[in-house]
Amino acid sequence: MIRPAHEFDVVVIGAGPAGIGVACVLKALGLENFVVFDRYEVGASFQRWPREMRLITPSFPSNAYGFPDLNAITVDTSPGYTLETEHPTGRQYACYLRRVVKEFNVPVQTGVNVTEVRSTTDGFEIMTHAGTRTAKYVIWAAGEFQYPKIDPFPGAEYCPHTATVSSWRDVAGDEFLIIGGYESGIDAATALCRLGKTVTVLDRRSISSSVTSDPSVVLSPFTQARLRQADRTGRLSVLENFKVMQVQREGEEFLVIGRQRQKKQTVLRTKTPPLLATGFDGSLSLVKSHFARDEAGVLQLSPDDESTITPGLFLCGPMVRHGAIIMCFIYKYRQRFAVVANAIGQRMGLDLSPLEVYRKKQMFLDDLSCCLDECAC
Amino acid sequence: MIRPAHEFDVVVIGAGPAGIGVACVLKALGLENFVVFDRYEVGASFQRWPREMRLITPSFPSNAYGFPDLNAITVDTSPGYTLETEHPTGRQYACYLRRVVKEFNVPVQTGVNVTEVRSTTDGFEIMTHAGTRTAKYVIWAAGEFQYPKIDPFPGAEYCPHTATVSSWRDVAGDEFLIIGGYESGIDAATALCRLGKTVTVLDRRSISSSVTSDPSVVLSPFTQARLRQADRTGRLSVLENFKVMQVQREGEEFLVIGRQRQKKQTVLRTKTPPLLATGFDGSLSLVKSHFARDEAGVLQLSPDDESTITPGLFLCGPMVRHGAIIMCFIYKYRQRFAVVANAIGQRMGLDLSPLEVYRKKQMFLDDLSCCLDECAC
Repeated sequence: MIRPAHEFDVVVIGAGPAGIGVACVLKALGLENFVVFDRYEVGASFQRWPREMRLITPSFPSNAYGFPDLNAITVDTSPGYTLETEHPTGRQYACYLRRVVKEFNVPVQTGVNVTEVRSTTDGFEIMTHAGTRTAKYVIWAAGEFQYPKIDPFPGAEYCPHTATVSSWRDVAGDEFLIIGGYESGIDAATALCRLGKTVTVLDRRSISSSVTSDPSVVLSPFTQARLRQADRTGRLSVLENFKVMQVQREGEEFLVIGRQRQKKQTVLRTKTPPLLATGFDGSLSLVKSHFARDEAGVLQLSPDDESTITPGLFLCGPMVRHGAIIMCFIYKYRQRFAVVANAIGQRMGLDLSPLEVYRKKQMFLDDLSCCLDECAC
Repeated sequence: MIRPAHEFDVVVIGAGPAGIGVACVLKALGLENFVVFDRYEVGASFQRWPREMRLITPSFPSNAYGFPDLNAITVDTSPGYTLETEHPTGRQYACYLRRVVKEFNVPVQTGVNVTEVRSTTDGFEIMTHAGTRTAKYVIWAAGEFQYPKIDPFPGAEYCPHTATVSSWRDVAGDEFLIIGGYESGIDAATALCRLGKTVTVLDRRSISSSVTSDPSVVLSPFTQARLRQADRTGRLSVLENFKVMQVQREGEEFLVIGRQRQKKQTVLRTKTPPLLATGFDGSLSLVKSHFARDEAGVLQLSPDDESTITPGLFLCGPMVRHGAIIMCFIYKYRQRFAVVANAIGQRMGLDLSPLEVYRKKQMFLDDLSCCLDECAC
């Protein structure tokens, strides 16, 4: 049976680690009539990272012993092996993703801008600038780096977001205020320190008082080491529990107005525009109406990461969460690729035995009961 | 029933990662009458590493997702979390081991020097300087760092072994020849380069031509990065395929005589004693007669890592191998702790259900069929 080139069994949207990763599992199941769409190119978000920025999870080719490289998106590839580095830059990681696409013949179509996903009686219509495509199933894998949080407080428009920096070498100024003390804020701070700049990080939380071993909450060992190194230069300070309320411009200066705990209002002055390290808004806006949220705004997903209100629409990637379980690392969310592929494969009557190797190599996590386990020491 | 303090069900010999790790599994099985003996102290070998030397596998607290930290010896601890570093030094790692001993109340007796293990009709006699102990089962876990290979060629007595260096800062000289290009040789070379020294590494093999992703064979990503960094100083050279045949002393100079591939003999001269980075002889000499080897000298073990000629004597740690499968990394050999504990527990009639979590977290590897799998990219 010859099917028109615009009708697919599965359309995956996004050619980053989540989209390419789940596509590799579909390939392994023998699915043929599917495609991965990306607005730009394979790994485009990683390609745009600041040049100095690196993955914070370390890569190591431990795959053969049931421990796929923490940054791998398949059971049998390793960025650490391919790129010969533990902490790939964004550009290096995009290179790894292209290697995987080539190695496994993943059917990617780049330059396809999806503008809407419509649920129909027998599946989906995917509206793109190149015309309408149809699919029985849609996997949304648009990642988290699409929409920087650029409006967290009044006056944020004066503050460049760290995600818009192409290299810290190009940023003018000698003294910096960075708003946000999680990974991207500390990344910016340590990169600037290495360039001889003086940096103050304003962190809403208290980095030092965290008492969990979950890397989705505390800083990674890689970043803790960078922080210690920056600290030794004497050019880095961190103001903890500091909540920025407003940024104002006054002549040549920027005023950052905030409050530390219960203390009274503080005004910090700087000649360099303060930097926003406030993270991202996620990439669900295009399909917002297809996903339910609870009263607290937490995304609702079925046990198979399917939308609870639009059957056939699945979510893959760092946006996946189940209650308190946050999957915002590659080594976490990649374990759900096989769960999604399993659900789709089952409904399509595919042979599911190729998924056994995923279970064996810890890439098929359908029991989430351990995900919040803490380390004893 | 009160048993004399010198009669044990199990005696573990060696309080390094292998001994402490397998002891934690015995604890989990509820075994009470057992002990870990160490000649010196917990983690003594790591404690003696050169100050600058670090574990080459990266630590990351990914435990909760079925990926225990690559340097962890239990399912629920993480050196990366406890030590806040990706690459612990030997001293830091010894500190982690002491934390584990304390956390899990591992019964360790230090300062116990084992001189002989005798097989008896109903178990073993373990001769120590403090007297004879008996055990039904013995687990040999003496690690690999006991006996540096100090005699690989004539004249090796002129060459200090890298394992005897307490800090590279204390080593006199400006120009160094390092004999051996695997991890310990490159570790020494990069540490010396960082101190401004000029270094030539003589490697029997060809580092660059390896085409495997097995970290037991090729250099780790951590070391490849250090190598690139040292290379950029212009003070590091590597002579590949160079086999050292002899070292001679001539006045104030040392002559390293060797051969590169089929070429004729080469003589390298240096004023600084050449360094031996020739690895270790393993720590089986005390129990050599209890283990069989094949014609090629390869150690023979049962599928449970038990001696094939002395029933009841098990091996844990980096010496464990099965044919071409070499377990010389913590993340590899730790997966056999549960295999050994399972075998002993079965014979002692213990409840084995506590081992389920080990299987779930990839710490119970009884199927070795994937251990030589290669990465596609």
